[in-house]
Amino acid sequence: MKSDDELLRSLLTGGPENEPQTDRILDAALRSFETYGPRRTTMDDVARESGLGRATIYRRFPTKGDLVTGVLLREARRFFAELDDAVAALSTLEERLVEGFAVTLRISREQRLLSRLMVVEPELFLPHSTIKAGPLLAAARGYLAGRLRTAQRLGAAPAGVDPEVVAEILVRLTHSLVLTPEGHIPLDDEGARTFARHYLLPIIRGGGPG
Amino acid sequence: MKSDDELLRSLLTGGPENEPQTDRILDAALRSFETYGPRRTTMDDVARESGLGRATIYRRFPTKGDLVTGVLLREARRFFAELDDAVAALSTLEERLVEGFAVTLRISREQRLLSRLMVVEPELFLPHSTIKAGPLLAAARGYLAGRLRTAQRLGAAPAGVDPEVVAEILVRLTHSLVLTPEGHIPLDDEGARTFARHYLLPIIRGGGPG
Repeated sequence: MKSDDELLRSLLTGGPENEPQTDRILDAALRSFETYGPRRTTMDDVARESGLGRATIYRRFPTKGDLVTGVLLREARRFFAELDDAVAALSTLEERLVEGFAVTLRISREQRLLSRLMVVEPELFLPHSTIKAGPLLAAARGYLAGRLRTAQRLGAAPAGVDPEVVAEILVRLTHSLVLTPEGHIPLDDEGARTFARHYLLPIIRGGGPG
Repeated sequence: MKSDDELLRSLLTGGPENEPQTDRILDAALRSFETYGPRRTTMDDVARESGLGRATIYRRFPTKGDLVTGVLLREARRFFAELDDAVAALSTLEERLVEGFAVTLRISREQRLLSRLMVVEPELFLPHSTIKAGPLLAAARGYLAGRLRTAQRLGAAPAGVDPEVVAEILVRLTHSLVLTPEGHIPLDDEGARTFARHYLLPIIRGGGPG
């Protein structure tokens, strides 16, 4: 199984080349994980579900840990691609941030694997979302900070803020809302947009002393 | 064992009257929890450690769950009292928020029970810090929102922001930093103050559209 650091690196640099059989294995694994949870899924389940031989599966994913990592990395890449798509047509950084915040909350809410893992395998899932969440938060921060830095270079975002720090505030807040949705911050699309405009854009604009 | 809602209520309204024997039991339980973790602590350990009879302990705390709740509530009340003390001498809301942020991070870092629970009993601790963290976040939000509301009433804070929402942003961010400290946000006293001035005060001042 990959270490957290390797996982982070693959997430940032893109994964192995897309290969139809690999995709078919990951599709089967994802369906099994969503239904039974990773712990109760066997390599045989994945072979049966994918219609491929056990040897084919083991050649690409030697352990179940590799399969779990493979599925999570593909889901993460899909998430970032979906996010990029959702904001591509918007013309200002501020509009993209507002929409990106609302879309992230929506995708997380609709992510079946995520909801399933929280309920079925908290002992596997919760440490990686909390005391071991450093690499996950760093990957998301890297994605967002890159976009902020580009906007600053183009003169489309205030230069007085540190992109890494602003990105980390937004990532931590979103992460908290995904893990613990209850509270006074609205999570539906329109509510999330209004909230982001009113309370998050001031952070990006900076303006505090010091 | 108290429900999350009852726990929240006691936290906000203050606990049972302070009673020397109760405090002595809770001191003994806290020491045992810090050393062995709650799961491996028995009522007999607490009796021995406190020098009181088992009957005295059971009369005040019928189950170990009640003892865990009692210890956590007292720690939470101590935390809020320490926080109030640390900011009492400061004259503006903004200075109190900046100092309160730095002090909260410091107290959490130095909280032995907290660090111990994260490491020794993650399966007990992590759900209450994530998917079941609603009541905990609500208690902290209630504390902070009350202070923001008072400042608004006195004209000492901008009126255009919702105290509950601003408080929730700050609470969620701090909670995330306690659970997962690694990142680009500085956590030492001076770094935390500079960060709070530059990136958190703009949220309190509002100014976003919508």
